[in-house]
Amino acid sequence: MSYPIAEEVVEKTIDEVEDKVTPWEVIGHSDTGIDYDKLIRRFGSSKISPDLIARIESIIKKPVHHFIRRGIFFSHRDLDFILTAYEQKKPFFLYTGRGPSSEAMHLGHLIPFIMTKWLQDAFDVPLVIQMTDDEKFLWKDITIEEANKYAYENAKDIIACGFDLTKTFIFSDFDYMGQCPNFYRNICRIQKCVTFNQVKGIFGFTESDSIGKIAFPAIEAAPSLSSSFPSIFGEKLQQEYPCLIPCAIDQDPYFRMARDVAPRLNFPKPVLIHSTFFPALQGSKSKMSASDSNSSIFLTDSPKDIKTKINKYAFSGGKESIEEHRAKGGDCAVDVSFQYLRFFMDDDERLEQIRQDYSSGKLLTGELKKILIEVLQTLVSQHQERRKEVTMDLVQQYMTPRQLHFRY
Amino acid sequence: MSYPIAEEVVEKTIDEVEDKVTPWEVIGHSDTGIDYDKLIRRFGSSKISPDLIARIESIIKKPVHHFIRRGIFFSHRDLDFILTAYEQKKPFFLYTGRGPSSEAMHLGHLIPFIMTKWLQDAFDVPLVIQMTDDEKFLWKDITIEEANKYAYENAKDIIACGFDLTKTFIFSDFDYMGQCPNFYRNICRIQKCVTFNQVKGIFGFTESDSIGKIAFPAIEAAPSLSSSFPSIFGEKLQQEYPCLIPCAIDQDPYFRMARDVAPRLNFPKPVLIHSTFFPALQGSKSKMSASDSNSSIFLTDSPKDIKTKINKYAFSGGKESIEEHRAKGGDCAVDVSFQYLRFFMDDDERLEQIRQDYSSGKLLTGELKKILIEVLQTLVSQHQERRKEVTMDLVQQYMTPRQLHFRY
Repeated sequence: MSYPIAEEVVEKTIDEVEDKVTPWEVIGHSDTGIDYDKLIRRFGSSKISPDLIARIESIIKKPVHHFIRRGIFFSHRDLDFILTAYEQKKPFFLYTGRGPSSEAMHLGHLIPFIMTKWLQDAFDVPLVIQMTDDEKFLWKDITIEEANKYAYENAKDIIACGFDLTKTFIFSDFDYMGQCPNFYRNICRIQKCVTFNQVKGIFGFTESDSIGKIAFPAIEAAPSLSSSFPSIFGEKLQQEYPCLIPCAIDQDPYFRMARDVAPRLNFPKPVLIHSTFFPALQGSKSKMSASDSNSSIFLTDSPKDIKTKINKYAFSGGKESIEEHRAKGGDCAVDVSFQYLRFFMDDDERLEQIRQDYSSGKLLTGELKKILIEVLQTLVSQHQERRKEVTMDLVQQYMTPRQLHFRY
Repeated sequence: MSYPIAEEVVEKTIDEVEDKVTPWEVIGHSDTGIDYDKLIRRFGSSKISPDLIARIESIIKKPVHHFIRRGIFFSHRDLDFILTAYEQKKPFFLYTGRGPSSEAMHLGHLIPFIMTKWLQDAFDVPLVIQMTDDEKFLWKDITIEEANKYAYENAKDIIACGFDLTKTFIFSDFDYMGQCPNFYRNICRIQKCVTFNQVKGIFGFTESDSIGKIAFPAIEAAPSLSSSFPSIFGEKLQQEYPCLIPCAIDQDPYFRMARDVAPRLNFPKPVLIHSTFFPALQGSKSKMSASDSNSSIFLTDSPKDIKTKINKYAFSGGKESIEEHRAKGGDCAVDVSFQYLRFFMDDDERLEQIRQDYSSGKLLTGELKKILIEVLQTLVSQHQERRKEVTMDLVQQYMTPRQLHFRY
């Protein structure tokens, strides 16, 4: 896939320009950010429909997570396949990951982990979490030692999300490569099937990119083969098992590639559910950036930091004056505080009331921000409490290759 | 470096066309094969001069191996540097390797190992031998299991060359990657410094090549960093040590690349000595091929196989009739039997006598072939005897990462 940059752009009005969505860059063109319906069509994935949600709920016998109800996880590839496997009591596993680019993680980074934790509990399945410290070393101006250290620091935040130790394996690429011969073998199997032309098309690489970057996609694809984890599967590993990958949709290119090569390598295509992007405080046009501390709420922020950042930076969909706001109401679609509540307030009724009140002008921007500040202060301080309990010894336990518990 | 293929070729006479020398293809254009003087100029290496040979002999206090005396190892990069290090009693190590493309090795494959064994004895230094089973998997239509098996089978032939167990570590890439975290780290360090454009220029890769091939050069370059071998160096590993790489000159591109990145990664540039190619039975125009059993003498050939192949296939520099041969003499420069004796007859005086007698017509082709047959039958059967002694248990000992013996 190539994105129009120069000549084509001038021919189009701003609305017609395609959004840019790669693992390293996300640029949306409308006020509400990315056009996700268009993205689904371009990527060739499927919308998570009300019927599909009803099927999930009938299988797990409880309501889906509000991320799914509210369309935050909005797109999928072959989710039906995993549901059928589950109904037939066949094993599958969850796979997600994180690129550890710095010590501090922000709220947006939590989204796939919150979803994954819910899926782990709902389906009672093992989970592997890849920390792509090699990717961050290859893309950023950091050393291997720094990237590897960030992997361990970030693992603490991930563990604080509540993953079950008996069902969760977290690994750094730099470390796991030297622990498990199967991992490199699967990487080579994938690399043999993929040409430079293909990764150029999928990821937009150029001839000036390093050979490390060019070969990297196979490293993010390889954990979707269960045979990359002999210790985790133990004697179960007589065959390849399917995996379900919850991720932000910018990671989809890796798994489109993995799905392309799956039949040739005789493993099941990985199944995906995709989330929208968590907006920056400044608005929905891009993902938050870990390098701009004012673009996001960090998991290390104090209650005061949170209050200041929301009040100062959270883009408002409210009107210029109180009088105008009361008369015309606010715009929830662009209001960052409301958008954040969609992610982090699980009470549907209360959220709907807030939406109505803000849209009608009954609720002022300051009042909306106050609600969000309280929600985030609680969420972040509870996260910090749990993270404090995560010792390096516990991290080592999660990061030790070992057999995980399988229900089936 | 790019090789003229289309437009330029038609402008040149056949003699002016550049020889093609890459790790995967060697095409010479003159009757005696590759023009090695031209290759030295194009690659930018240095000829091993009589002065340099004299310096080696004064340092090791014995004559150099006949491979060096006879210009079979003819080219080098920075050999002076290693000699000076040795004089100053500073540690260095030897690094060579083999691409295990099949179970059987042929005579040509022995050349770098015979040279390396001599260097190990002459300088009393540790040696690492890389079996690039990953390369063979990526380039050939074989499975990982096959390539890995060939690595172990070929290791038996290599061990039969007489390498000292206390100073020699042999490793398969597929296995060592899962044993030593440093190896992958060094590969990534190199991959970060090298672009697709660079490997395209050095190796002739195209956009249709697999990303595995494109990233592979870093894997052959990485063992030239001593930090890829923490167990071998043990507590010595406070700094990077220089290595000396004996190899056929078609492998030079990997190490040109390694030498390019060395200053950026703060390790000493690898030092090289390069051999000419061992000619195919059919003549000097190309390397021998492991896939054509009649192009070469295999280490598994019986005395009868050897006799038949030499008599039937060894390209002769003799004349059409005995009368003409007696009158005009044979051409040693193109005669494969004589060339093979240059490699495998260590008696200089006898070889010179044969050269004179064959050139004058005193020695007939059949007589020359008879001499070669005896030399090779002895060499191959002695090799087979030694190989029989190499148990899989002994192979495992050579292939176990462990501290090697250092004189300094």
